Amino acid sequence: MSEQIEDLELATGEDAERQAYKLEPKTVASVLYAVDIDDREKLTELMDPLHAADIADLLEQINAFDRSRLVRLYDREFDGEILSELDESIREEVIAVLTPQVLSQAVRDMDSDDVVDLIEDLEDDQQEAILEVLEDADRVAVEQALNWPEYSAGRLMQREVVMAPEHWTVGQAIDHLRGTAEEDLPDQFYHIVMVDPRLHPVGNVTLGKLMRSKRATPLRDILEETFQIIPAMRDEGDVAYAFNQYHLISAPVVDDEGRLIGVITIDDAMAVLDEEHEEDILRLAGVGEGSLSDRVVETTKQRLPWLAVNLVTAIAASMVISQFEAAIAQIVALAVLMPIVASMGGNAGTQSLTVAVRAIATKDLTGSNVWRVIRRECLVGLVNGVIFAVVMGVVGIIWFGSPALGYVIAVAMVINMVVAGLAGTGIPILLERVGVDPALASGAFVTTVTDVVGFFAFLGLAAAVLL
Amino acid sequence: MSEQIEDLELATGEDAERQAYKLEPKTVASVLYAVDIDDREKLTELMDPLHAADIADLLEQINAFDRSRLVRLYDREFDGEILSELDESIREEVIAVLTPQVLSQAVRDMDSDDVVDLIEDLEDDQQEAILEVLEDADRVAVEQALNWPEYSAGRLMQREVVMAPEHWTVGQAIDHLRGTAEEDLPDQFYHIVMVDPRLHPVGNVTLGKLMRSKRATPLRDILEETFQIIPAMRDEGDVAYAFNQYHLISAPVVDDEGRLIGVITIDDAMAVLDEEHEEDILRLAGVGEGSLSDRVVETTKQRLPWLAVNLVTAIAASMVISQFEAAIAQIVALAVLMPIVASMGGNAGTQSLTVAVRAIATKDLTGSNVWRVIRRECLVGLVNGVIFAVVMGVVGIIWFGSPALGYVIAVAMVINMVVAGLAGTGIPILLERVGVDPALASGAFVTTVTDVVGFFAFLGLAAAVLL
Repeated sequence: MSEQIEDLELATGEDAERQAYKLEPKTVASVLYAVDIDDREKLTELMDPLHAADIADLLEQINAFDRSRLVRLYDREFDGEILSELDESIREEVIAVLTPQVLSQAVRDMDSDDVVDLIEDLEDDQQEAILEVLEDADRVAVEQALNWPEYSAGRLMQREVVMAPEHWTVGQAIDHLRGTAEEDLPDQFYHIVMVDPRLHPVGNVTLGKLMRSKRATPLRDILEETFQIIPAMRDEGDVAYAFNQYHLISAPVVDDEGRLIGVITIDDAMAVLDEEHEEDILRLAGVGEGSLSDRVVETTKQRLPWLAVNLVTAIAASMVISQFEAAIAQIVALAVLMPIVASMGGNAGTQSLTVAVRAIATKDLTGSNVWRVIRRECLVGLVNGVIFAVVMGVVGIIWFGSPALGYVIAVAMVINMVVAGLAGTGIPILLERVGVDPALASGAFVTTVTDVVGFFAFLGLAAAVLL
Repeated sequence: MSEQIEDLELATGEDAERQAYKLEPKTVASVLYAVDIDDREKLTELMDPLHAADIADLLEQINAFDRSRLVRLYDREFDGEILSELDESIREEVIAVLTPQVLSQAVRDMDSDDVVDLIEDLEDDQQEAILEVLEDADRVAVEQALNWPEYSAGRLMQREVVMAPEHWTVGQAIDHLRGTAEEDLPDQFYHIVMVDPRLHPVGNVTLGKLMRSKRATPLRDILEETFQIIPAMRDEGDVAYAFNQYHLISAPVVDDEGRLIGVITIDDAMAVLDEEHEEDILRLAGVGEGSLSDRVVETTKQRLPWLAVNLVTAIAASMVISQFEAAIAQIVALAVLMPIVASMGGNAGTQSLTVAVRAIATKDLTGSNVWRVIRRECLVGLVNGVIFAVVMGVVGIIWFGSPALGYVIAVAMVINMVVAGLAGTGIPILLERVGVDPALASGAFVTTVTDVVGFFAFLGLAAAVLL
């Protein structure tokens, strides 16, 4: 019977609509109360209408103590899908709490590719514990999948494929489908992959077309127009890109010899797209991986490296300032104004950088337009630089009553914002060329450049002009 | 016949694999050469194997002059799908170049929901020009879709739905499908929506299940487990979230009375997810919308507001510094070291902020865990603050030979990094509560806080302790 996931709160009015799909604090509170009074029946009643993904979210949002009590109480109802949806760090914690019987039951009910997804990030001993409880055929399938490198199409694909030889008709394909045992078919499938005698995929037929065509129609006459073959070693990020770019619903995966070995469907590609974006956003901010459910120690460790890099950067910029101590001692206004030049450069640089990193990720920044983009970013820096230079020049004159100081800050601002455009675009492009993820490393380099250039241009000009 | 999109370059070796799905500069150069020598045949030969999405990318990557020459030469081959894939600003430019005959041919071949997607962002006169060339039925459908607000589920959905009454059997559904005219069915569909007599959706049946079941099986016995109904006014970002969270493939859309009026499929949801992410990344960096194909003037305009906000912020921070001019005049080392304190706070704040903004977007930060998250971020700030305070204290002593200066910078660093954790988490949460997109506005507030607190704590302590 169909189980409709109810909206977690009434969706009336604008505010409620803004909260759509959000776990309601009231639900969480009721669940925690049931745990507090040790009421298994009440807990089951509250959790039953929730989708596994929402239960996972709930587990992530409560603290470790409540979580372990909840898992123990919920125990027998715990299914594998909840485990799949859990954040890595929480997942290990929950698996450690589950009794072996519950764990093995939860895992046995899952498809082998979901088991792969579940265990690939687990510690070795937890991984082995789960592999042991699987049936032989499933264990072999999971181990084979784990042989493909992490983040490859081979790791992402499901192995159950519905295929048909090229000479088949619609009728033959339908009879084949109806004759195949349930467990040999994927849970959900939307295409039949047509293969040649060497098992090379040659086309996709959608079930909709199959269903509406005459039994005598050759499959080759009703192939989909868009068809993409994915090598098993292809990076999953590129796979997600291809699904989005070419509007694919499913795509066959092939081995080195081009033979069909699995299929990737759009729901998996969408999940990857989401993860890749999360990674990009967090990396741009210098937050390694990190999720809300990590503990203080882990979070501190994740953020420390980037802060350390930033400290080195900041000290380098300070050394530039220290070269001009004499000038600052004479004109303290320089110390007051210098952070403005650096800050505007840093912001302009971050803007250029983010656009460039995003364009590289979407493959829109290529050899064909790289120079035009760099030129544009420098020009934008120049125009904005001139605008803000005029503003700051005026501010300098009014605030400190010194036209010369206004002139110096204006020129320094223009220089730094042009450099920001250049560095913000050039650095990610260079990093990508040498094989470093531009999202990860560009920020530190660009800010170093804009800080150093900003302080040097402003203080250097001031020393030359004003002293 | 199936048209396989060939990889745009040979995918051998690690480097080539890294370039997967990227438009090769050589391809672009050949296309431009064909345009240069005015060779329509050669151009068609080069463009034919390319997917419409890649042709759109190519058009975006070349300059405006080449683009208009290319569009004119390619003319008769130009189809609507290329227009759909084009970036807004380029799309308007291309439509202006196309002859009315070519444009009307291109648009008439498209599904009505693709036409909506195509024209919703166009200028009024271009929109009308396209509406005029549509057949009456299509025009009405497009106009009805445009009545739903932008970014709503109603605007996103397709109107062609395959539905079946609840009492039907598998056989009845199959016969209905085979009996329906091609043009009344969606291009691609994966589910049949089961409806009650009031047209309220009650469940989904996948085509795979339908095909494999006996003709006499009631549809209600083979419904999908996961089923979500989407109100037409729901924000498309929430729709994309629901598809990703609940692993939906398609979902029925209903009007205010709960009646089925359309369906959204996962490929549209994936495109929305991608756009939402792009928006988040760009907003976090203070780049309004912006794409690589925008011109200098547009780009300058998009970036100016954020830079202006930053200027105000930077001036506010400078005013804090100017309160301590006397201290700086006596100890110039303060001017050298103060940017370090502000910079470390700014970075730590950006880290907290990004994690919080992302968690709000994924609905992982809710009333249930908000205080725990804020406490954690402050603790992380404290721990990292202490670590870097020790480092900077030592640097201060070695560099300037002043233990007191080292002590001051250390304490200021700890204060600013705790405040960074608090502001980085609290500000986006507050903004979300009052209905402002935290991705858009948080950055400016958080940096203001860390700059002001950084300078004030460091210079204030220095003035109190060292003078």
